[in-house]
Amino acid sequence: MVLGMDGYLGWPLSMYLSNRGHQVSGVDNMSRRKNVAEIGSWSATPIAPIEKRLKKYKEITGKQLTFYQGDLTQSDYVNNVIEKEKPDTIVHLGEIPSAPYSMIDLEHCNYTQMNNILSTNNVLFAMHKHTPKCHLLKLGTMGEYGTPNVDIPEGFFEIEYRGRKDKLPFPRQPGSWYHLTKVHDTQNIMFACKIWGLRSTDIMQGVVHSVSTDDMVDEALLTRFDFDEVWGTALNRFCAQAVIGHELTPYGRGGQTRGYIALRDSMQCLALAAENPPDEGEYRVFNQFDECYSVNELAEYVVKLNGEFGIEAKIWNIENPRVEAEEHYYNPDREGLPSIGFKPTNTLEDELRITIPILIKYRNRIETKREHIMPTIKWRA
Amino acid sequence: MVLGMDGYLGWPLSMYLSNRGHQVSGVDNMSRRKNVAEIGSWSATPIAPIEKRLKKYKEITGKQLTFYQGDLTQSDYVNNVIEKEKPDTIVHLGEIPSAPYSMIDLEHCNYTQMNNILSTNNVLFAMHKHTPKCHLLKLGTMGEYGTPNVDIPEGFFEIEYRGRKDKLPFPRQPGSWYHLTKVHDTQNIMFACKIWGLRSTDIMQGVVHSVSTDDMVDEALLTRFDFDEVWGTALNRFCAQAVIGHELTPYGRGGQTRGYIALRDSMQCLALAAENPPDEGEYRVFNQFDECYSVNELAEYVVKLNGEFGIEAKIWNIENPRVEAEEHYYNPDREGLPSIGFKPTNTLEDELRITIPILIKYRNRIETKREHIMPTIKWRA
Repeated sequence: MVLGMDGYLGWPLSMYLSNRGHQVSGVDNMSRRKNVAEIGSWSATPIAPIEKRLKKYKEITGKQLTFYQGDLTQSDYVNNVIEKEKPDTIVHLGEIPSAPYSMIDLEHCNYTQMNNILSTNNVLFAMHKHTPKCHLLKLGTMGEYGTPNVDIPEGFFEIEYRGRKDKLPFPRQPGSWYHLTKVHDTQNIMFACKIWGLRSTDIMQGVVHSVSTDDMVDEALLTRFDFDEVWGTALNRFCAQAVIGHELTPYGRGGQTRGYIALRDSMQCLALAAENPPDEGEYRVFNQFDECYSVNELAEYVVKLNGEFGIEAKIWNIENPRVEAEEHYYNPDREGLPSIGFKPTNTLEDELRITIPILIKYRNRIETKREHIMPTIKWRA
Repeated sequence: MVLGMDGYLGWPLSMYLSNRGHQVSGVDNMSRRKNVAEIGSWSATPIAPIEKRLKKYKEITGKQLTFYQGDLTQSDYVNNVIEKEKPDTIVHLGEIPSAPYSMIDLEHCNYTQMNNILSTNNVLFAMHKHTPKCHLLKLGTMGEYGTPNVDIPEGFFEIEYRGRKDKLPFPRQPGSWYHLTKVHDTQNIMFACKIWGLRSTDIMQGVVHSVSTDDMVDEALLTRFDFDEVWGTALNRFCAQAVIGHELTPYGRGGQTRGYIALRDSMQCLALAAENPPDEGEYRVFNQFDECYSVNELAEYVVKLNGEFGIEAKIWNIENPRVEAEEHYYNPDREGLPSIGFKPTNTLEDELRITIPILIKYRNRIETKREHIMPTIKWRA
């Protein structure tokens, strides 16, 4: 069961899991489409209505995806859907995923925090009641950790402090009201596993980029690709900027370093985690990314690869709207997913060679929303 | 400004600060009275309506406390009150404080989490807007830390990990949906201080016990004293059990060790923290307790002291309704508050000599609610 089936990750993951032979159901309240429209933007790729996606997928593959339209903050609804489907795995992608959106004002902060916390609590209680052996595969973010001056382990670390030892949750230092919700979820899920014996994999995912998986064989099966200041993320936004002749705009000095992962590799990782569940009562953390890059490095990759398509892109380091370290140590572990078989598919350059032509095809849709690319939402405002 | 002015701590703190010469306003939605009534219990001490408390306090002292009845989860209300009063210090006690209450079911979990998180977010945003130099003195709990196998510092610790060093937030391992809200608040407040330069003292308070401060010179000025399974806490519940001839009931093996603090010392600490604010932009953590005891040790103190009043109390270690370590290492730091002048007032025995006669006076009120003392709310349920 994929919560957030209509989203950037949820839609391709539903196809990916279905094509691997899994029986897939999903839930979505369609809030992502609404919330992107709220700020006046849209996806660079045209995205079909969910009904059309489901129909086209069935036409092409003969496989049925079961879809429920509903709101995960409604506990009775969550309870009913989980009782009816009795999933063996729930992939919880059904949260509001944007740092800038959560930073617009108090209303957006509270909406993001309530939406994300309540949805996860409702899922945990429904699992406890109806499917206590179900595996909750929950989407967190590498952003939960912030940028500590030490290596970042996968969720927990063994330390010695004043001569005594313990294995403790690694401290979280998230950087937005949105990132905070993922930390709150982490704490809530860890507790539910402890008291009820639920099993969960908490995915600390890096920034996802690109727009292709092998399942998108028809335009109606494309996933969304956001590029505006609110819903776009660094690498995807740079690609969109390049194809409309907009400067690439790393924020601040551009030394901010993060883990990045291609969409197709995110699918691979989530499927592997789903197919290799933790033990009952186990709360497991995977750091999920291909490689780490600074935003300046990413901008340089995008300039170089656009050159191959005859596009001359320029870099313009603009004032940073966020509060974050612009030069820092960054060395996260990535052991868990490789240990169950994860291998990155393409090099970053090869993946960009696939992404850029798709964006060139939809360049007019990006051009139309050009005014929504530069940052206006400021962390200190 | 005391948020939660009508509560166990809020009422005596309002008088305490007023009698030290501060101008005190307060807010309360009266939910504590309602939530205790919901589970069928009441305070051992008779508590006057807030209007009567305020009137009597003015009659006796000539001092005016300004009271606002309203709900902190309503952002416009919080905004209006803070804009009107422009406090230099906000003591935020306005949260739902019960672990068992939050563990009743999903509805109570979500109510507690939403109430506590939203109230704090609303206060942070209103401070940022109207009183950016105001000091937020926020009530957390020692329970945020759980029971790690290493010393517990005050909020942060310097560690070496794989040969590199950093000062990081100390990991939190809370033990109920309620305790989790305090961790969520901690993370949210730390972030607000970082991005907006707000100043805050986050109080990791031990379990508060007793019922007296020097300001309670009239029955109408008494604070509440809860003793039932939901709202009572270990030491207070033992005292109430003893005076009605009920066995004292430590949960499980009784080796659970926590920091405890007398009500009068909590007032002293909160006033000292308010009068010694942190710097602008500083997020400061104080661990606030007098001494650490295991619940078995507390039960033995209560047996001994009741003996002085001719009451023969017995101890009965019952099945633990919670999921928690019953034998563990426990060594929290307590440096910050002593460094600004905190000195515990009475020994535990002397404080019990004050508490027990008060409970004897109100023993019939406790007897009436005897059926609400034994635990029915189970963590694994």
